[in-house]
Amino acid sequence: MPTIRIDMFEGRTPEQKKNLVKAITQAVVDTLGGKAESVDIILTDIQRSNWATGGELWSEKK
Amino acid sequence: MPTIRIDMFEGRTPEQKKNLVKAITQAVVDTLGGKAESVDIILTDIQRSNWATGGELWSEKK
Amino acid sequence: MPTIRIDMFEGRTPEQKKNLVKAITQAVVDTLGGKAESVDIILTDIQRSNWATGGELWSEKK
Amino acid sequence: MPTIRIDMFEGRTPEQKKNLVKAITQAVVDTLGGKAESVDIILTDIQRSNWATGGELWSEKK
Amino acid sequence: MPTIRIDMFEGRTPEQKKNLVKAITQAVVDTLGGKAESVDIILTDIQRSNWATGGELWSEKK
Amino acid sequence: MPTIRIDMFEGRTPEQKKNLVKAITQAVVDTLGGKAESVDIILTDIQRSNWATGGELWSEKK
Repeated sequence: MPTIRIDMFEGRTPEQKKNLVKAITQAVVDTLGGKAESVDIILTDIQRSNWATGGELWSEKK
Repeated sequence: MPTIRIDMFEGRTPEQKKNLVKAITQAVVDTLGGKAESVDIILTDIQRSNWATGGELWSEKK
Repeated sequence: MPTIRIDMFEGRTPEQKKNLVKAITQAVVDTLGGKAESVDIILTDIQRSNWATGGELWSEKK
Repeated sequence: MPTIRIDMFEGRTPEQKKNLVKAITQAVVDTLGGKAESVDIILTDIQRSNWATGGELWSEKK
Repeated sequence: MPTIRIDMFEGRTPEQKKNLVKAITQAVVDTLGGKAESVDIILTDIQRSNWATGGELWSEKK
Repeated sequence: MPTIRIDMFEGRTPEQKKNLVKAITQAVVDTLGGKAESVDIILTDIQRSNWATGGELWSEKK
């Protein structure tokens, strides 16, 4: 029944996302048991202008 | 004071969203008490290419 | 398929929570359509010492 | 190590966001200690048509 | 830089959690690239009395 | 109207939390404008056994 949210920088390809959700779902089933069908994953693409580390937006970092 | 977040597939009409937030706010007031004004709801429209169930993105499902 | 998260002050009774999730699920089905079974709701009980409005924790408000 | 998420109405300028993350990071370091580099902030711009208070979307309020 | 949140029923053992975060981090690195050190995962244990599907709390399901 | 969520390790004192929410609210008002009363902050205390970086739970790190 796990519900998984992944915040990551925008720019991943559809192929990367497809592989990502497949691999994570497998990782959940392998370690927690349960059925793959009960694993939900929501991806959120974050713009660099909306993510800051150390007080600086990534869009501003050099 | 409840703060409610709703993740759902994109594609709902403005009319559906308007009815949704009205009905949910009423449901909260009816069951928990309190004032409607203290209920905040944030809707997030999720693309099918960003939501996976069973290890497969909904944009890939047939 | 909506996934709903509700942050609210701790202290609701099991009966209130039971009624709340039932009423909200009905509200979603009534306004968006779809099956009740596809509606997931996660409740989070927040302590007054962990929620602030106007820069003041609710545990400090008089 | 705090991870901070900020949901706010869309429409803030890049300059406002830049100042916001800088000021919040400083506030965290000043009050909790630790290094600025360990503070992550993710901003989410919410449309008025996706945020409701009192059962009414902000896009509908007069 | 992905930040991952996992909501799951309470009751997983420390060993399961340890294996879970290791396997998910590996899945992210394998499919998105990047360094393991940039993957943050936050687990949230949800009580059955706080999670509903189909309008019914899991603590009430038979 | 910003709603702010802060995930941080458990162990902060009530005094630290009190100062944190005050300072962050001030930072929001100073940089975005608006009233302090419209700033909501929810703090979540995360156990080291529920937060992983680099595939390892903080409870396991030496």
